[in-house]
Amino acid sequence: MSSQNVFLYDTTLRDGTQGEGVSLSVDDKLKIAKKLDELGLHYIEGGWPGSNPKDMNFFKKVKDLELKNAKVTAFGSTRRMGVTADQDQNLQRILESGVRSVAIFGKTWDFQVTHALQTTLEENLDMIYDSVKFLKENGLEVIFDAEHFFDGYKRNADYAIQAIKKAEAAGADCVALCDTNGGSLPHEVMEIVQHVVQELSIQVGIHCHNDGEVAVANTIAAVQAGATHVQGTINGYGERCGNVNLISVIPNLQLKMGYSCIEPHQLVNLTSVSKYVHEIANQIPPSNQPFVGKSAFAHKGGMHVSAVLKHPETYEHIEPEAIGNKRRVLVSELSGQSNVLFKAKEWNLDLDKNNPATKQIIEQIKELELNGYQYEAAEASFELVVKKGLGEHLEFFKLDHFKIFIENNADQSFTTEAVVKLVVNDQEVLTAAEGNGPVNALDHALRKALEQFYPCINKMYLSDYKVRVLDETDATASRVRVLIESSDGTEKWSTIGVSGNIIKASWYALVDSVHYFLLKQEDQLEVVHQPKTESTIGVSNH
Amino acid sequence: MSSQNVFLYDTTLRDGTQGEGVSLSVDDKLKIAKKLDELGLHYIEGGWPGSNPKDMNFFKKVKDLELKNAKVTAFGSTRRMGVTADQDQNLQRILESGVRSVAIFGKTWDFQVTHALQTTLEENLDMIYDSVKFLKENGLEVIFDAEHFFDGYKRNADYAIQAIKKAEAAGADCVALCDTNGGSLPHEVMEIVQHVVQELSIQVGIHCHNDGEVAVANTIAAVQAGATHVQGTINGYGERCGNVNLISVIPNLQLKMGYSCIEPHQLVNLTSVSKYVHEIANQIPPSNQPFVGKSAFAHKGGMHVSAVLKHPETYEHIEPEAIGNKRRVLVSELSGQSNVLFKAKEWNLDLDKNNPATKQIIEQIKELELNGYQYEAAEASFELVVKKGLGEHLEFFKLDHFKIFIENNADQSFTTEAVVKLVVNDQEVLTAAEGNGPVNALDHALRKALEQFYPCINKMYLSDYKVRVLDETDATASRVRVLIESSDGTEKWSTIGVSGNIIKASWYALVDSVHYFLLKQEDQLEVVHQPKTESTIGVSNH
Repeated sequence: MSSQNVFLYDTTLRDGTQGEGVSLSVDDKLKIAKKLDELGLHYIEGGWPGSNPKDMNFFKKVKDLELKNAKVTAFGSTRRMGVTADQDQNLQRILESGVRSVAIFGKTWDFQVTHALQTTLEENLDMIYDSVKFLKENGLEVIFDAEHFFDGYKRNADYAIQAIKKAEAAGADCVALCDTNGGSLPHEVMEIVQHVVQELSIQVGIHCHNDGEVAVANTIAAVQAGATHVQGTINGYGERCGNVNLISVIPNLQLKMGYSCIEPHQLVNLTSVSKYVHEIANQIPPSNQPFVGKSAFAHKGGMHVSAVLKHPETYEHIEPEAIGNKRRVLVSELSGQSNVLFKAKEWNLDLDKNNPATKQIIEQIKELELNGYQYEAAEASFELVVKKGLGEHLEFFKLDHFKIFIENNADQSFTTEAVVKLVVNDQEVLTAAEGNGPVNALDHALRKALEQFYPCINKMYLSDYKVRVLDETDATASRVRVLIESSDGTEKWSTIGVSGNIIKASWYALVDSVHYFLLKQEDQLEVVHQPKTESTIGVSNH
Repeated sequence: MSSQNVFLYDTTLRDGTQGEGVSLSVDDKLKIAKKLDELGLHYIEGGWPGSNPKDMNFFKKVKDLELKNAKVTAFGSTRRMGVTADQDQNLQRILESGVRSVAIFGKTWDFQVTHALQTTLEENLDMIYDSVKFLKENGLEVIFDAEHFFDGYKRNADYAIQAIKKAEAAGADCVALCDTNGGSLPHEVMEIVQHVVQELSIQVGIHCHNDGEVAVANTIAAVQAGATHVQGTINGYGERCGNVNLISVIPNLQLKMGYSCIEPHQLVNLTSVSKYVHEIANQIPPSNQPFVGKSAFAHKGGMHVSAVLKHPETYEHIEPEAIGNKRRVLVSELSGQSNVLFKAKEWNLDLDKNNPATKQIIEQIKELELNGYQYEAAEASFELVVKKGLGEHLEFFKLDHFKIFIENNADQSFTTEAVVKLVVNDQEVLTAAEGNGPVNALDHALRKALEQFYPCINKMYLSDYKVRVLDETDATASRVRVLIESSDGTEKWSTIGVSGNIIKASWYALVDSVHYFLLKQEDQLEVVHQPKTESTIGVSNH
């Protein structure tokens, strides 16, 4: 265990946006910068001022945020060939951005110098020296990003070391060793960083990519070898397979190895920061994401669960609360009494195992599971089963009937229409709606009927729809399991329906979703007993 | 570089299905087993015969596959307390499953023995010894999975070592050290495995979980320390954050470190096996997945492109072709042609790149892919596109129109009916049929119409049906991709349809499936030009 400080350098806003499908507006970047500052990160790389006006705009606006912990950093390259540093546009833009810290990258692999840059090894060393010196003379903290350092070192260690020594000689505060292609392995990183730490007397940093799925391990190995500056991105966004994921690096270093990165009261925000960044970047959070994923502390299986509850340390590598995540017990086919009781407790449901209702609920769940229901991905439906079992009144409406008409006409035009008749507060209501498929039409018609009584229903919408055939002997005639995910813009919930008929299964999941939402709103519900007359009649006459 | 052999033990079918949202039918498992065998894996763990009838069913059916490389393995636990091994139901089931290899797990962490198992340390050692001995006496190859080994070793190394030595003494062929909680770090794994390798004279294996995002590095560290048996899953499926991802372990060991795992001609299938398993498990392949992801060798345009093309080794950690992935240059569409030619060749279709029809086919496929078609798991549809492009006559019938009526009546009875009007050989035919859902009804009506002309149509049936929403912003109104798997009892084929409307997408996939089947039968087809009169008229009058 070490109590040494490790400084965290986030490049989500620059390298992270190189990831396919990740795109951040200036406003998005400012929001994320604020969160990263609250999390206690030491550096936030905002962009490359020389490369586009958007990044320059960010540096202008970020000053108003008055960040508390983090230094805002600009990214750039060493000067071009054949110009002096003070003539170099790219270095000038960095000064104009007004940052106090900068990371500039330069080449340290001889082959890259002669073949990609197409200059001499000597000129490249001068480019590094001049650029670092110029920025230092202008009062900046300078981090030198040694591009392709590990690949360069493996081919020509002498030149790679010469290059970073040039940066040191010019006054660089830190040399960050980059595994640009992401292909190095931990034992290589360990050995090479150990050598560099002996050679340099300034701070050494590490910058890894995940092409070999070992970026977190490479970063840890570098820290063990003496690096005290760690570059990475939130959730591992980045080009190809991504940069190293700081969300995993931080708890490994801090909770398992005793390094100091951020304060414990900041660490508990790790899960929410990860989710927040996924949200802003419009990425679906992987449920199996280490440390912060929804499944990261999820436990299946009855026998196992009672052991987890008694001695969580025997089944969990860290305490989920330390990083703001939480333990989840999955209700699955193997479910026993302790799973159900634990789930109920999570939802503040009073389930006493000596209560006869409890036994009945457990029996019912077992039977539903036998019929293909699976509640691990449909907790809202599970909650409804338990609440119904405890006698809560949940019937906000009753179905009289529905009909769906799908027509592929002779001119190949296509229509899908649903007609739904409900009884709500003893009143009948008949609606019709179109959709892009039978379930979509049904959903539209159902909500059109309900909005007259529960106007809040318009706040919710279906956000995902999954279908699975449960046994394959006779596919479209088999039992199907439908999972529906719904959202009201802030919260998400999932419901399930199983039937031999896909439409019936979808209807069950739809109804559960609506019931769950209305139940949540119950306190605020103002039941409109008189529906808008014209709309109801209009549809009835349809 | 080492040239030592490493044996790969896949547990996708058992531990992989512990992952949230991963669920595999017996048929899915058989399909995956076949692919893993082709990939050259040495062991395929099929399930836990004692735990459920589904797994037992797998062991029965897998014998018919006649796997070439892999040994099918069963999973189980050491005997229960207080019974002899031959009285233990769980061990008996393993024998009944008919496997020649087995992995049984036992406890090696003293705290787990006394607190979870609630027995004495001595009794636990006996349980290990008796169970291994019993299975060896029955002629099985025995792998002892040392559960919680690393956590146990860190607290009580003596007991942990004692426990695995018991397994060795009883004749175990291999001891696999499990990092059950997934929290160990590479330097710990390295040190502990080194010690174990000194203590034991039998084979040592490693079984890692990814809770710290270092499972691949832990596995590599164990192999460096002397482990020669590696357990993991395809794509890293598994409980919580998953098991170690064999898809990343294999190329790291083989291409970077020189170990022998599988043959080079098998390694080129790595990408397609990864995708295939994602498809079967109905998981969305992460585009940033190391080695095999769509973005893993993607290069953004600009100044680097020519350098990448001239000297790929300067921007790529391995050659993508070695594992069947490919370089992508994101600004250009260079990749299309070679990809299509490659696929066509795979399926023995004669596509000459100088033939003008080929260019047209490639353009069409590119457009279809842009619209969400993906032919990895729908080779029959791909073949139809190519054959149509080459001018083969494929129109066995023409749709005039169809209608589907779904009714959930007031008495809660439910009917789904489809009416289809086709033109076959210039004759109109109108049929109606019921089904358990709209697609099932449509399928029945379609085949009822066709059987009069193509009696062989009754030999085929749909064997699986999968739906995926392509973008999640507005679930039931999004584009959906439908995959249909069909069978004629001996062969299986898969077809795809994409549309904003799930019924239309299903229809496209259905039509492809029928066309593919009829095309295969063409030689034997006896087209009945006069349909059976009474049936046609009967339905027309409906």
